[in-house]
Amino acid sequence: MDTTAPAEQQIRPEDLPTFRYLVPHDELRRRAAALQARLVAADIDLAIVQTNADVGYVAGSILDGWVLVPATGEVKVLARRAAARVQAETCWQVERMVAVKQLVAELGAMGVARGRLALALDVVPAADYLKLASALPDAEFVDLTHHIRSVRAVKSDWELDNHRIAAEQVKEAMHTVAYQVVPGHTELDAARLSEGCLRGAGHQGLIRMRRFGGEMFFGMVCAAANAALPAALDAPLGGSGLYPPAGKGPSLQELRAGDLLVLDLMGCYNGYLSDCTRVVAVGGIETVDEDLLAAQAWCVDVLEQVSATARPGVAPSALYQLALDLAEQSGHAANFMGVAPDQARFVGHGIGLEVDEYPFLARGFDEPLQAGMVFALEPKLVFPGRAAVGIEDAFIVTETGVEALPAQPRTVLVAG
Amino acid sequence: MDTTAPAEQQIRPEDLPTFRYLVPHDELRRRAAALQARLVAADIDLAIVQTNADVGYVAGSILDGWVLVPATGEVKVLARRAAARVQAETCWQVERMVAVKQLVAELGAMGVARGRLALALDVVPAADYLKLASALPDAEFVDLTHHIRSVRAVKSDWELDNHRIAAEQVKEAMHTVAYQVVPGHTELDAARLSEGCLRGAGHQGLIRMRRFGGEMFFGMVCAAANAALPAALDAPLGGSGLYPPAGKGPSLQELRAGDLLVLDLMGCYNGYLSDCTRVVAVGGIETVDEDLLAAQAWCVDVLEQVSATARPGVAPSALYQLALDLAEQSGHAANFMGVAPDQARFVGHGIGLEVDEYPFLARGFDEPLQAGMVFALEPKLVFPGRAAVGIEDAFIVTETGVEALPAQPRTVLVAG
Repeated sequence: MDTTAPAEQQIRPEDLPTFRYLVPHDELRRRAAALQARLVAADIDLAIVQTNADVGYVAGSILDGWVLVPATGEVKVLARRAAARVQAETCWQVERMVAVKQLVAELGAMGVARGRLALALDVVPAADYLKLASALPDAEFVDLTHHIRSVRAVKSDWELDNHRIAAEQVKEAMHTVAYQVVPGHTELDAARLSEGCLRGAGHQGLIRMRRFGGEMFFGMVCAAANAALPAALDAPLGGSGLYPPAGKGPSLQELRAGDLLVLDLMGCYNGYLSDCTRVVAVGGIETVDEDLLAAQAWCVDVLEQVSATARPGVAPSALYQLALDLAEQSGHAANFMGVAPDQARFVGHGIGLEVDEYPFLARGFDEPLQAGMVFALEPKLVFPGRAAVGIEDAFIVTETGVEALPAQPRTVLVAG
Repeated sequence: MDTTAPAEQQIRPEDLPTFRYLVPHDELRRRAAALQARLVAADIDLAIVQTNADVGYVAGSILDGWVLVPATGEVKVLARRAAARVQAETCWQVERMVAVKQLVAELGAMGVARGRLALALDVVPAADYLKLASALPDAEFVDLTHHIRSVRAVKSDWELDNHRIAAEQVKEAMHTVAYQVVPGHTELDAARLSEGCLRGAGHQGLIRMRRFGGEMFFGMVCAAANAALPAALDAPLGGSGLYPPAGKGPSLQELRAGDLLVLDLMGCYNGYLSDCTRVVAVGGIETVDEDLLAAQAWCVDVLEQVSATARPGVAPSALYQLALDLAEQSGHAANFMGVAPDQARFVGHGIGLEVDEYPFLARGFDEPLQAGMVFALEPKLVFPGRAAVGIEDAFIVTETGVEALPAQPRTVLVAG
């Protein structure tokens, strides 16, 4: 226990303002058991878990430190600070540890200093890895990434309930923006309005992305040509942002009649995301070019055809291929997902505590869907220098198909 | 150039909605020259720059890829996507490259495949480092971190102008919140109000933090005991957040008369941050306990004494020691910065494109201040289970002292 901050010794779970949101202990134990089963199968002695999303998943608390998950036995949490608070949030034993050498001693005491240790090499900085590898010269280090992402991909009922609340946040925000936006507002005005709605509905603000360099701020609210401008982020639509250091999403450009305003918004509740895209006809539906409305209708059709084939046992790569085939058949291939046909990297992605989770609906992702997975499907078309259209809904994979998250009309929203 | 997305071939700088905010080319060339001087001094052949803040600093564009800075010669940008957009934002030559093997071939062509290559090991993931190290078995890899952080620590006039605008954002938001907040509002209400003000003033939303696991969403808006609750983040004040996965900052607790509401807000304009803390007497100044008001006044006094001694040539560690000495003399040591006296890790930190930049006002940071550095000074006192008080201003180091960013009264704000 933390002996340096007297306050912390007094923290009981029921004293936390967040008491009613704590992750249930049986939920934490289920998660640890699922990870441990994978560790055993992969002949890994112990996982050192240390990136926020993974740590929060296993421990139920975001902490500065390490969560040690042995292949068998109890999970142990080592926290550099606020140990008493972490103890109030988790079911696992928490010890205060500051230095890597203490971690190394702990691993020795657990009998794994010469074992196979797993670290999420896709996110842990090189310097941390090198320090640990040099302090444990007899250990073998392997990658935890695929194992923990696979476990996290299948959600419990408790997790799905949080996803559903996140989806309701977005549904409400979409309609508020569509109701209030008028020509003359800037993209930033519309974005700010959506952000205020989401925060008011209990959105946590922070959105986590796993990929190195991945950054996300609520989503993308861009109109006309700016929605078609590509950005660094590996997403179909980009946007200029306000200035280059925030080079994604809304600009200060004014919305005009005839514009399609794309709202790609992420809800987030108790860590869990939703992801939804709708377009708003800023000056009324009759001001929008007919070919854009037809392209929008095509995206809706693709979303409905692809989602209708999704069920346990189907490969995510097959869903991607179906969308690509539809694009090729319709003559939309050159504009599909913002890149050339041989480059369309995905048509959907898993969501959970991070925006880029398993399963990816992309080439090469052949491990079949399972009930409890949650993915966002987002067929989009980009018309460079002119506009972007598209739709996105999140889906829960059920025993027999998928459930849209949330169910709401897929029509073009009309401003005012 | 990117040949896969026809749109991009047409992008000229003047077509970007962000044209007027592009980093001036002479500013980019100055930055590269400063980094190259350090590379030469450290006998490094080439730096591979690849985390968003560093990339944006050197290239003037956030991109997915690598920025290659040779010790002498021209900087080269390799972008995995949106290459034409990146070209419109930067002065350096941009090539589209997707795979690490292309990067390796490029390094070979540049004659550095057997040289000393620098990577920011504190942020680059272990997997990326291992892949590169294995593809370049004859290269020697060294850490870029200290070099690029040292260069970034000294700001140009162009950068300082952006810092000043960010500071104005916060000044305005503070006063709006203080004016509007009343007992019965929640911490989230106050936070959301501040966020809307900041966004309306052109805040980019995203706030970058370098430290692994560091996450920041505008700042901390917490009252009474919740402001004193420690969080994972290495900061004096924490807060519960709305629920454990966002375990920092505002909760749904209602503000009451007698509470001190701490507003620790970060402005951000064109990438550059400001950082400022004030406290609001929610029910009027006469409702606040006198010992808390005295503690608050003490923090203001420390800020003024410490900032008055800051100037070029003074070690940041000396400023930290002065603050610690004042805490010990006054009997506040046990509550200073939220941790016990032997643990008070810092009393300030540099700010720039990231919230945790050089110089750190902490033990061990002995490299003297230079004109053009920007740091936030934040003496704070934590009374566990009861309240937190404190103040924070950012300062530009001038030739003769410091300039507060922005100049504004350091009194307790009164709600309503």
